[in-house]
Amino acid sequence: MSEAQAGGEQLGRDWWRTAIIDMQPGIIRYRGYAVEDLIRQRTSLAQMVWLMTRGELPTRAQADLLEAALMAAVDHGPQAPSIAIARMAATCGVGLNSAMASGLNVLGDVHGGAGEQALALYEQVAARLDGGSAMGDAVREALAKQVRLHGKTIPGFGHRFHPVDPRSAPLLERVDEAAAAGQIGGRMAAIGRAIEDALAQGRPRRIPMNIDGATAVIYGELGFPAPLARGLFCLSRAVGLLAHAWEQTQQGGRIKGPLPRQWTWSYDGPAPRPVPGSDGG
Amino acid sequence: MSEAQAGGEQLGRDWWRTAIIDMQPGIIRYRGYAVEDLIRQRTSLAQMVWLMTRGELPTRAQADLLEAALMAAVDHGPQAPSIAIARMAATCGVGLNSAMASGLNVLGDVHGGAGEQALALYEQVAARLDGGSAMGDAVREALAKQVRLHGKTIPGFGHRFHPVDPRSAPLLERVDEAAAAGQIGGRMAAIGRAIEDALAQGRPRRIPMNIDGATAVIYGELGFPAPLARGLFCLSRAVGLLAHAWEQTQQGGRIKGPLPRQWTWSYDGPAPRPVPGSDGG
Amino acid sequence: MSEAQAGGEQLGRDWWRTAIIDMQPGIIRYRGYAVEDLIRQRTSLAQMVWLMTRGELPTRAQADLLEAALMAAVDHGPQAPSIAIARMAATCGVGLNSAMASGLNVLGDVHGGAGEQALALYEQVAARLDGGSAMGDAVREALAKQVRLHGKTIPGFGHRFHPVDPRSAPLLERVDEAAAAGQIGGRMAAIGRAIEDALAQGRPRRIPMNIDGATAVIYGELGFPAPLARGLFCLSRAVGLLAHAWEQTQQGGRIKGPLPRQWTWSYDGPAPRPVPGSDGG
Amino acid sequence: MSEAQAGGEQLGRDWWRTAIIDMQPGIIRYRGYAVEDLIRQRTSLAQMVWLMTRGELPTRAQADLLEAALMAAVDHGPQAPSIAIARMAATCGVGLNSAMASGLNVLGDVHGGAGEQALALYEQVAARLDGGSAMGDAVREALAKQVRLHGKTIPGFGHRFHPVDPRSAPLLERVDEAAAAGQIGGRMAAIGRAIEDALAQGRPRRIPMNIDGATAVIYGELGFPAPLARGLFCLSRAVGLLAHAWEQTQQGGRIKGPLPRQWTWSYDGPAPRPVPGSDGG
Repeated sequence: MSEAQAGGEQLGRDWWRTAIIDMQPGIIRYRGYAVEDLIRQRTSLAQMVWLMTRGELPTRAQADLLEAALMAAVDHGPQAPSIAIARMAATCGVGLNSAMASGLNVLGDVHGGAGEQALALYEQVAARLDGGSAMGDAVREALAKQVRLHGKTIPGFGHRFHPVDPRSAPLLERVDEAAAAGQIGGRMAAIGRAIEDALAQGRPRRIPMNIDGATAVIYGELGFPAPLARGLFCLSRAVGLLAHAWEQTQQGGRIKGPLPRQWTWSYDGPAPRPVPGSDGG
Repeated sequence: MSEAQAGGEQLGRDWWRTAIIDMQPGIIRYRGYAVEDLIRQRTSLAQMVWLMTRGELPTRAQADLLEAALMAAVDHGPQAPSIAIARMAATCGVGLNSAMASGLNVLGDVHGGAGEQALALYEQVAARLDGGSAMGDAVREALAKQVRLHGKTIPGFGHRFHPVDPRSAPLLERVDEAAAAGQIGGRMAAIGRAIEDALAQGRPRRIPMNIDGATAVIYGELGFPAPLARGLFCLSRAVGLLAHAWEQTQQGGRIKGPLPRQWTWSYDGPAPRPVPGSDGG
Repeated sequence: MSEAQAGGEQLGRDWWRTAIIDMQPGIIRYRGYAVEDLIRQRTSLAQMVWLMTRGELPTRAQADLLEAALMAAVDHGPQAPSIAIARMAATCGVGLNSAMASGLNVLGDVHGGAGEQALALYEQVAARLDGGSAMGDAVREALAKQVRLHGKTIPGFGHRFHPVDPRSAPLLERVDEAAAAGQIGGRMAAIGRAIEDALAQGRPRRIPMNIDGATAVIYGELGFPAPLARGLFCLSRAVGLLAHAWEQTQQGGRIKGPLPRQWTWSYDGPAPRPVPGSDGG
Repeated sequence: MSEAQAGGEQLGRDWWRTAIIDMQPGIIRYRGYAVEDLIRQRTSLAQMVWLMTRGELPTRAQADLLEAALMAAVDHGPQAPSIAIARMAATCGVGLNSAMASGLNVLGDVHGGAGEQALALYEQVAARLDGGSAMGDAVREALAKQVRLHGKTIPGFGHRFHPVDPRSAPLLERVDEAAAAGQIGGRMAAIGRAIEDALAQGRPRRIPMNIDGATAVIYGELGFPAPLARGLFCLSRAVGLLAHAWEQTQQGGRIKGPLPRQWTWSYDGPAPRPVPGSDGG
């Protein structure tokens, strides 16, 4: 091929430029590491998640903490629309991949965004700490801005089902252990706790940190930017989506709707009326 | 740019070859027709559907029949998983496009495939008629093959909710009118009716043609291949998906699951047990 | 069933309350109209779109204008990611519904949101007109707020491919005809034109209204709220997605990537390196 | 609530019956294990994948092998449509979840199904071995049936890009180690190798096992049914989808099409022609 012809091809190749994977016949390298070496060195899935998204292999401590956050959020049951959707899709004659995709697709700003939003809030506090503020002031200002911009529900705290989210304390224990061992800084954990303290003021009960607030502490400690926290939550939840879609295929069912088959929905629209031009109209 | 360089670009351009749309700055032509002419000539949406999928503009009669099939199947209510999914998605913080897409995605072989499968069955009968068989024999053989390959539920006939599908008769009237006017051949209608007759034999009640069987008659009369019937049904159902997703956003709701908020699902898995290595295990 | 037991079922039924469709065995009514009447009265697809989303049947003039907006935006070719995605999906062994859904799914705020954003801008101008402002002031203020909140690219105007979008003028002609006939008010058209005039000031060339700005004029004249404009654009684009996905299945191809098969992407990541703990590392 | 009213609710709850997750306020149990115990016991992501899909915790050896299969298939670069789609979606104004979902959605029978299909083939051989056949006969018959039903391309073997897939040998080493240690039976590995031997007969070159054939060996050894192999591949590939979607957001780009911006596709449709009824027509 001539140099000039290669120029046309190069434009096309550069349009799809990436630093993640290099491939030639017989060769696959992720971020420079040959895949066969990664396999032989027993690289874990969590280490691969880090390598692929961050570009380097994590330390053992970093991988362990990431793994904790990922395994803790895999499922919240069929009343979560993502899970219900995956189950329904599995009865509609599409592959497991599409059942999982349909569920993943609805982990949007409201259903899947709380971890990202909690981490963004922690980053707001951290920025003020970096500017010299004391924790109390930093938290107070960040919370005020959060409420002003996004409303009074603070992402990462409280839960409409669980008075205390059973996933938070054990995750924070893992963070505290890693901080005590000097493996992470511990600042995000301090920020999260300070927010919980601030939210408790003037209220009869605490509004405890939930799974999103706890995983946000971990992702923040590990240096993941807030939007990536949403993607990591998706990897986590994909496990639950697969499990539920698979269980549904084993249970059977065809074209499964949200309510028992014998039920139909409530209708509160117009009474029967004729179409203009038809008999009676 | 040199000729050789253009060779590289040409490979790329040819990789995305299409006969549907031609575009240059200021120019858009669909199948050779300038878009401004199509707009000025008041081309209808149904005519565009035909033009884009078939390559030519339809006759007025063809467009009318296509329109009838498209408008008749727009919605079947929130107990249809596609509709429920679109509604739930609309409460999860994704755009209307994603709510619609999530619903469309589950119109798979089981939820969205009956029209395609019914038309494929009609085509089987038609092939035998073309080979010289009488209608009764053609129908009998095609049905036997259908049951053998795909099971005893015949696509296009019967309905688990409607003893008689209210959409079938008025659609078949439209087909009969068009056949009487010589605008279509009428063979698919005859095939559909012959199948309904054959299914009635030996049964106390008829298993009447449903919406899928009726639209399949229309799509078959109009010369659409069976797989395209599924795509056309998707265009139709997209209208209902949009309407329901939009209504849900107006009703409000956040992270809407399939059951009333106060309810939780039934659990029939293992009893509480300790994780090996933990206290109590 | 007892009254109390019915209470449990009623909670479930009310959880899926809708004013769009009423169904009982043998009966389907859309917004109170029996489906068989709608079919027999030759209700068009555009009329159904209006009925399902707005709750009432449109006038003939309203339906015609809606139809014009819907048919004009069906496709923009394989360099639009929505179209490319539908084509690629069609080579991956998923149904046409999933190919269409995958394309629809990416008509997000950036790829599919311009019509909605343009209409929101027009509504901002209209609100100021309602408050007594003159058009020039209303447009100036609304544009200033638009730029401040959303950046300098004004949705609905200009186009990175077309110096003049060939779809705009014919659509505005249709609007002008309807306004001249007293069928619509004409205010949105005036607003759109005033914005185009304002954008031209101090520039060597006009930044002409594009398809999104033109359809936004129509949807605004017809009283559709801005978010619904995105959904209507999705109905439109679904036609192109189907046509392209279908054409791709007819062309063949397996697991189609974005570039010609012989090409691979550019890699600009780390050089080959050993995994810690492996030979050479 | 009365007993009878509870009857209505129970119907609803049973409609969403699952053995995967039990939840009450403050309590989440996956397959009977309290989530806080799973976190405290440092349960890995791979162990959670097994627990959620299979119902029990795996042995250490089982988890290690599962992990190897999952980490090995995370990405195959932007020429894979799933990856390209996730990248394009990320430029369209949808969340990372939707970019990942759009990519996952196309891992259908052709793009994502090879692992499932390879495992189904191995199961065919295994069934014959269970019936007393010798390996050579079992493989020969299973291959003949595979070709007859599905065509001459044998899933799991050969690769259109890699003469030798670099992921296969290291994965089979892991299998051999586990078999040598008595942790797995080794039969699936023997089947896979026997198929590769059979395919080599009469050919100048071997058609070596690829990533799908190798992961199918692992999933088969671990007792996963074939359809679940597709879901596991999806979990794997989701990591690559996230990494690429994220990288694309960092690179920037808006409404990214498949080809460089300056290029447009090849058009091979009708020449320009007038719409009937318009000037010139």
